[in-house]
Amino acid sequence: MITSFDELISHVKECGKKTLAVAVAQDDAVIEAVHAAHEQGIADAILVGDEEKIRAIAASLQIDPDEFRIINEPDMIQASLTAVKLAHDGVADMYMKGVIDTKNFLKSILNKEVGLRTGKPLSHVALFEVEGVKQLLFLTDVAFMTYPTLEDKVNIINNTVEVAHACGIACPKVAPVAAVEVVNPKMPATVDAAELTKMNEEGKITGCIVDGPLSMDLAIDPEAAQHKGATGRKIVGDADVLLFPDIHAGNLVYKTLVHTAKVENGCIITGTKVPVILTSRSDTFRTKVNSIALAAVVAEALKNE
Amino acid sequence: MITSFDELISHVKECGKKTLAVAVAQDDAVIEAVHAAHEQGIADAILVGDEEKIRAIAASLQIDPDEFRIINEPDMIQASLTAVKLAHDGVADMYMKGVIDTKNFLKSILNKEVGLRTGKPLSHVALFEVEGVKQLLFLTDVAFMTYPTLEDKVNIINNTVEVAHACGIACPKVAPVAAVEVVNPKMPATVDAAELTKMNEEGKITGCIVDGPLSMDLAIDPEAAQHKGATGRKIVGDADVLLFPDIHAGNLVYKTLVHTAKVENGCIITGTKVPVILTSRSDTFRTKVNSIALAAVVAEALKNE
Repeated sequence: MITSFDELISHVKECGKKTLAVAVAQDDAVIEAVHAAHEQGIADAILVGDEEKIRAIAASLQIDPDEFRIINEPDMIQASLTAVKLAHDGVADMYMKGVIDTKNFLKSILNKEVGLRTGKPLSHVALFEVEGVKQLLFLTDVAFMTYPTLEDKVNIINNTVEVAHACGIACPKVAPVAAVEVVNPKMPATVDAAELTKMNEEGKITGCIVDGPLSMDLAIDPEAAQHKGATGRKIVGDADVLLFPDIHAGNLVYKTLVHTAKVENGCIITGTKVPVILTSRSDTFRTKVNSIALAAVVAEALKNE
Repeated sequence: MITSFDELISHVKECGKKTLAVAVAQDDAVIEAVHAAHEQGIADAILVGDEEKIRAIAASLQIDPDEFRIINEPDMIQASLTAVKLAHDGVADMYMKGVIDTKNFLKSILNKEVGLRTGKPLSHVALFEVEGVKQLLFLTDVAFMTYPTLEDKVNIINNTVEVAHACGIACPKVAPVAAVEVVNPKMPATVDAAELTKMNEEGKITGCIVDGPLSMDLAIDPEAAQHKGATGRKIVGDADVLLFPDIHAGNLVYKTLVHTAKVENGCIITGTKVPVILTSRSDTFRTKVNSIALAAVVAEALKNE
């Protein structure tokens, strides 16, 4: 079981380097991150984009461009389709966004011929190592699905549980979190949470333990959970997965953690044929490298399926 | 301008002790907190409840019960009505919940004859001092209003801005926060945020600067805000008030801060004739004392109105 990003990266190294295809790679932050992933033995990269610009950026960063395979394709849409096809065809194990806008990047993922559709809905998972919290936390969905229905939440759980399994967590504890830990018919999020718990008990959601609704303290703080007398619950401050009621709750907690707590984090898009890395410009260098490492762990698990 | 709980408590001491009426005071955590408030020169307490039990608890805590005024009223409902009347009549400056359940405590506040109604809706505000964040943060509403409408949000802002003014923040910056910082018609929280910003520009919400929607990083992290190029915005990581889309987002962020960041916090109910302290059993001793101090600052401001 992996309990830190250091362990995650060690695990990736043991499994052997993966290959990463980058769409529209002419970006310093992206090249810096894939270079670090290369150096750390996480992944080799195939950079698709404007070769001249890629080489100039590498030179300016004192990175040897020949450590990458470069495919020259100055047109952005075309570059994304070429890059995603590498992942589609199994040449690459992971797919990463460069300087292409998110909309067109997603279009390449959803492309019927060369894309990464599996029939499952896509969702986003952010993995956090938080100082003071023993277990790694998988936050979902904080960036992709806006107002998930009950059915969407089932899909989000399934996508995320796969990632947790890849990280060696055999039976992750999934907490559908809310403002309160009791069902209140006036709060739909709590009703959904109870329904998801029941579906898990009935064997309709498998490979994990679901227990909700849970407030944040009961989900992540064993002491608080015990203090509140959370006996008879399946989760007592030891949740692995935090399932949020909607994107506002998820994203606000996500950014609160990043900007006020001591954390390491990384994130990927799941539900795709191979894991997808869609970091934003505001993500730090470490977050980008961590995201590549998380994707590599999931790619390894998919290979062994 | 107050920028920490230490400064808040110093300010209260300068203003002179306030008086606190406690409903159903026979509770160790409550008696410990009001004793500390007495010791620190924040407030004297009138304890309404079962006198025998109150004296026994004080004795067990080695607190001299005669530092309080005790009104013997063993019946819980009657005790809450007696205590709230003290605040209603101006004998006490603040009203605090003891071991009475929240529902009956709120009933006493809303009582037409002896309660604390002002015609304004009630809302909850949590004040945070967060390590790494320069300004104090007023989080609202994380515990009381569940799914505020646009009109509710205007009321929440008005209630909270009064508290910020009491803390010496002449023109607080109010950030209606959301997952994104741009208006998206598919995300009602962002539409409300833009509407509140417009109402502020048109002079319909006064005494503050409203700028939203804002993501959490743009609201509280000046570096992140600058990195994202948030030019032309009125808030650049320096928000004083974080207005949440709903209770789930608010409460989850609130508890994330408490359980993962280094914080001091306290909270009160506003919109009432005098500030109301409604802490929960899971709140720490410090949070309870901080809440009394915050209430005292607001009580002082109300006196000077």
